Amino acid sequence: MLGARCLLRALRSCSSAPCPRPKPAAKLSVRDALRVQTASGERVKVQGWVRSVRSQKEVLFLHVNDGSSLESLQVVADSNLDSRELDFGCSVEVQGQLVKSPSKRQNVELKAEKIEVVGNCDPKDFPLKYKDRPPLEYLRQFPHLRCRTNALGSILRVRSEATAAIHSFFKDNGFVHIHTPIITSNDCEGAGELFQVEPRHRVGGPLSFFFIDVPAFLTVSGQLHLEVMSGAFTQVFTFGPTFRAENSQSRRHLAEFYMVEAEISFVESLQDLMQVMEGLFKSATAMVLASCPEDVALCHRFIAPGQKDRLEHMLKNNFLTISYTEAVEILKQASQNFTFTPEWGVDLHTEHEKYLVKHCGNIPVFVINYPLALKPFYMRDNEDGPQHTVAAVDLLVPGVGELFGGSLREERYHFLEQRLARSGLTEAYQWYLDLRRFGSVPHGGFGMGFERYLQCILGIDNIKDVIPFPRFTHSCIL
Amino acid sequence: MLGARCLLRALRSCSSAPCPRPKPAAKLSVRDALRVQTASGERVKVQGWVRSVRSQKEVLFLHVNDGSSLESLQVVADSNLDSRELDFGCSVEVQGQLVKSPSKRQNVELKAEKIEVVGNCDPKDFPLKYKDRPPLEYLRQFPHLRCRTNALGSILRVRSEATAAIHSFFKDNGFVHIHTPIITSNDCEGAGELFQVEPRHRVGGPLSFFFIDVPAFLTVSGQLHLEVMSGAFTQVFTFGPTFRAENSQSRRHLAEFYMVEAEISFVESLQDLMQVMEGLFKSATAMVLASCPEDVALCHRFIAPGQKDRLEHMLKNNFLTISYTEAVEILKQASQNFTFTPEWGVDLHTEHEKYLVKHCGNIPVFVINYPLALKPFYMRDNEDGPQHTVAAVDLLVPGVGELFGGSLREERYHFLEQRLARSGLTEAYQWYLDLRRFGSVPHGGFGMGFERYLQCILGIDNIKDVIPFPRFTHSCIL
Repeated sequence: MLGARCLLRALRSCSSAPCPRPKPAAKLSVRDALRVQTASGERVKVQGWVRSVRSQKEVLFLHVNDGSSLESLQVVADSNLDSRELDFGCSVEVQGQLVKSPSKRQNVELKAEKIEVVGNCDPKDFPLKYKDRPPLEYLRQFPHLRCRTNALGSILRVRSEATAAIHSFFKDNGFVHIHTPIITSNDCEGAGELFQVEPRHRVGGPLSFFFIDVPAFLTVSGQLHLEVMSGAFTQVFTFGPTFRAENSQSRRHLAEFYMVEAEISFVESLQDLMQVMEGLFKSATAMVLASCPEDVALCHRFIAPGQKDRLEHMLKNNFLTISYTEAVEILKQASQNFTFTPEWGVDLHTEHEKYLVKHCGNIPVFVINYPLALKPFYMRDNEDGPQHTVAAVDLLVPGVGELFGGSLREERYHFLEQRLARSGLTEAYQWYLDLRRFGSVPHGGFGMGFERYLQCILGIDNIKDVIPFPRFTHSCIL
Repeated sequence: MLGARCLLRALRSCSSAPCPRPKPAAKLSVRDALRVQTASGERVKVQGWVRSVRSQKEVLFLHVNDGSSLESLQVVADSNLDSRELDFGCSVEVQGQLVKSPSKRQNVELKAEKIEVVGNCDPKDFPLKYKDRPPLEYLRQFPHLRCRTNALGSILRVRSEATAAIHSFFKDNGFVHIHTPIITSNDCEGAGELFQVEPRHRVGGPLSFFFIDVPAFLTVSGQLHLEVMSGAFTQVFTFGPTFRAENSQSRRHLAEFYMVEAEISFVESLQDLMQVMEGLFKSATAMVLASCPEDVALCHRFIAPGQKDRLEHMLKNNFLTISYTEAVEILKQASQNFTFTPEWGVDLHTEHEKYLVKHCGNIPVFVINYPLALKPFYMRDNEDGPQHTVAAVDLLVPGVGELFGGSLREERYHFLEQRLARSGLTEAYQWYLDLRRFGSVPHGGFGMGFERYLQCILGIDNIKDVIPFPRFTHSCIL
């Protein structure tokens, strides 16, 4: 392919006069080229993929994109240029002069002196087509190529910026980052659908890699391990992959997804936690909006019209708080008929979450103090009654439903010991009890589904479109 | 435990005069308290764990640590204070006045008005002891408590800062961050020891979660998926967990470890890559040294004496480059007897790597252009001979050996097609060939073992001590 490189020269600027040997051109990303404020003919080299070729009487217009930004750089070449291999999708290296563009559409353009096709792209075979805007669902068939479209390019750049923003938020607030383990012998959520791990060729065999007779699983949450660390560093967070072997094809579930989890010592109320959750959501979103506004705008314009206003509405209002008990009352008094009848002591369903968010004027709403019987052993007992609750909190957001889940943890040794004994877990969780034996502190934490966060800010309907390589039942392409 | 909270008041400052109701104290981390330059009696609240209790005639000295820094805050209380529950390891909340310390050892100290023991810690049962400095190996038995020691506290804070530094380096240089998948149907390295993944209760059963008859594995590298993304974003990186089911208890191997991987389009030589590798190592290290010098100093002083000079030596010199062929010649001419006789066409062993680094004056050394027959299908053919090599590069560093591995990738369709055919992989890698059919570009990338990086800069001998929860054969504690 590169053996057949063809060197094409567009000598527009040099054709009429003998041109002196130019000094080597500075390599520039498209993003940096577009940012040059006062272009005055500096010689540069830009590399990328052709997004459009348009031939006019005297000039040839190319748009070259290298993924550093949504916007492409306009390249202007002499129309005598041999443009036969300049197809949509081919890779090129362009050298020339960066000049002020006469058009209002862009600030600068590149007057080409030399265009080299680096790798061809046969338009007949290439599944992406010029000027096509195929639905996201169609693009999912091509996980190795869809990142070259404007839509996925923007979504994945936003994902990258959001990742950085989340790390910044925690760093700026004094949290220590912890890599919690992926392979674990714990099952944090209790009855989760777990993936089991064994070396190849040994699955089902008598020998186990990690333990004899004790299976190892992929983590469903880093919480318990973060609790270990919050007992040393006070404020800790993790941001990594988590797994559920759920047989679900829903637009909100994946078998492999990312969670942002934090654990904080010396908090004494859910309000302390809720403040961090709201702060994280709003700060990270503000950073993303500031760092890649064009990418966000593309999603808001072409994929989720109206999302810009919905997001602004979320950002400018204080999040609301209702108790689980209040939530059930609201649902009972609703005029709407639910598939699942709302009842105290039963989990909220998606239809209920949606109703509650709408009822709250499409402002994110914290639902707090859930029935003890619904929640895992580690959540702090509110010691209330007769409707016995724990200090748990979920944040429900428009379009997505549950975005965060968190709780105060049971830091009182004897309370925890009893809960573990009731579940028959005392032996397995001696180490967890130890955390309450030695310098225990009131603490709490939360987890945020990162893909749901991206769905929420961008308005992307299907979770499979906000992760580079989605894994779900019957699908592990690439 | 907290039910038995005891409120202790050290009314040192208020004991002689009636004191007015103080205004609420500002909550401060130990780190922030220690940074106050001109303390002049501001009322603050500090929470943490007691690291030492020392009683003198008139005053009681406490050292309180909350993990925000290596250094603890000195608390000075009246000796009349009931200090019976103030044990090493207990958690406390201290309110008082931040004042300039008369001692030269610290800038500020906290004059306590009120000390509350939040959670007790029985010294008889607590495995960590006051003034004990147990070896790292001993601490490995207590993965849930060892983070409360100075040594592990420092190592894990450095790990957190290094994580941030690596993200910064790539962001500052225009790389897009990509979450490459953990569960995959690919086996990037060829003959790696893989972990297989299946839902619990279904292991060995007829139904597969992801595919019928195609097993799913834990990733050994994100490289192939990064190559997909470098074809859209030009410069990409990932930083996540990778897995090897190797039956090894070595001080340099884990079953679960973290890799920093980058992939760059439009590079044309190994030198381009090596520049980024050296830049990453030196920038990240400089950032770590600037952000947590005390933590690094603790390791250099108490765990690895001499490491400070060794690291400075690495940082101030340009990394060296030799070819694999030259390396074999050097080894052949060595006066040392090796267990494995060095020979062209055979992999370098640890003893060889060690010798080469020493031979190069303990400066990190790039070894380039390895025999084609030793390397996977995706490495770029150098088309040389009769000793046929590929454009691969390893970086060897003192103490650790191989820290980075990288290569130019075979971007030429027909070369790659032939290599895949020879390995019988053509069908499985159609998608990978597609990347060369549609706008192929010369590209390359590398991976750095993150734990080995930490070992290298801190001088930590065993890899199990630089990761919060190590996983290796027969060990998956917690």
